[in-house]
Amino acid sequence: MSKVKVASFGMSIDGFSAGPRQSLDDPLGVGGARLMQWFFPTRTFQQMHGKGGGETGVDDDFAARGFANVGAWILGRNMFGPIRGPWPDESWKGWWGDLPPYHVPVFVLTHHARSPIEMQGGTTFHFITDGIHAALEAAQRAAGDRDVRIGGGADTVRQYLRAGLVDEVHLALSPALLGQGESLLSGIDLTGLGFQCTEHVASRQALHVILSR
Amino acid sequence: MSKVKVASFGMSIDGFSAGPRQSLDDPLGVGGARLMQWFFPTRTFQQMHGKGGGETGVDDDFAARGFANVGAWILGRNMFGPIRGPWPDESWKGWWGDLPPYHVPVFVLTHHARSPIEMQGGTTFHFITDGIHAALEAAQRAAGDRDVRIGGGADTVRQYLRAGLVDEVHLALSPALLGQGESLLSGIDLTGLGFQCTEHVASRQALHVILSR
Repeated sequence: MSKVKVASFGMSIDGFSAGPRQSLDDPLGVGGARLMQWFFPTRTFQQMHGKGGGETGVDDDFAARGFANVGAWILGRNMFGPIRGPWPDESWKGWWGDLPPYHVPVFVLTHHARSPIEMQGGTTFHFITDGIHAALEAAQRAAGDRDVRIGGGADTVRQYLRAGLVDEVHLALSPALLGQGESLLSGIDLTGLGFQCTEHVASRQALHVILSR
Repeated sequence: MSKVKVASFGMSIDGFSAGPRQSLDDPLGVGGARLMQWFFPTRTFQQMHGKGGGETGVDDDFAARGFANVGAWILGRNMFGPIRGPWPDESWKGWWGDLPPYHVPVFVLTHHARSPIEMQGGTTFHFITDGIHAALEAAQRAAGDRDVRIGGGADTVRQYLRAGLVDEVHLALSPALLGQGESLLSGIDLTGLGFQCTEHVASRQALHVILSR
């Protein structure tokens, strides 16, 4: 059955999924890249960026699983880019260059309308201005029998969790402290929302947990 | 050199170190015992409770390390017992029976004065009514060259962290969700306080991390 899932989401020991002060130089905020040290060396990530090789094993298994059976993505505006407020022009097309790693329709939450952007490799960015429920409906329509993956950032995941719309979350806890940033779970009663930790595996770089309901 | 340390402190995926509604039946709050599943089977815990056997390995290594070289403990009032407000009488002597697992002086933070209680095996409970700094001074005097261990609960650890008085924290992250309870790290900028994650080892039951500065 089609699921709504969050996958390969990094979190620090102190509960942050991104560092403070996101910018062109720090797409994950200051220090945020430390939460993805488990992901960058994987075969899944390396091949996504047109490189050969990459590591297999626990981390790669989880990385690959996050991309399996995904028919559409939903991204928050900050995950799409560092620009805030109205779009100054049409030049920003995401962090990922001409060939983004999605290869399916991607729905971007924003308060500022913009025409869809068709990228290479099957990715089309659609801009949704009428909220998270509308974005999910559009994504589910596009995904058909396949899953919808909420790509982030933290605030977008929090909104979908709180609305009770997420079926499964894969977190990768990194042995790192950020001190400040975007807290992922604070104030969200996951047990009250019906979640349990149904799977856990540690690699050298991360503790992978699956939360599902 | 003598350190101030927190050790064997359980934390859930969602950042809680105790469940809600602590009581005689739930000393760690509802669901809180799930954070110590890595600890209960260890040889250290089993022998502490007069039983033979117990498991060795990563979990036991960390459990044992937490008790090594400790010359005094500091406990919050709630870690000492479920009673709130003035002591109704002298009958409550901690959760641990006649032979508590401390075997050194233990300083209990409280707003309500009480005479010291000498227990079997070297533990004496001293009640400190003039705050965390006074308790630490008394504990350091008692400990001499040995370490002072802040035993908990979460609020006591938070107070000592915020005051910049802790040198080392060992957390055991359990693959469990509590949903509600006592958050350990929210709102505390550990990086700003100078902490880094200096060690991490996973067992089947927990991700052990050492935070130090």
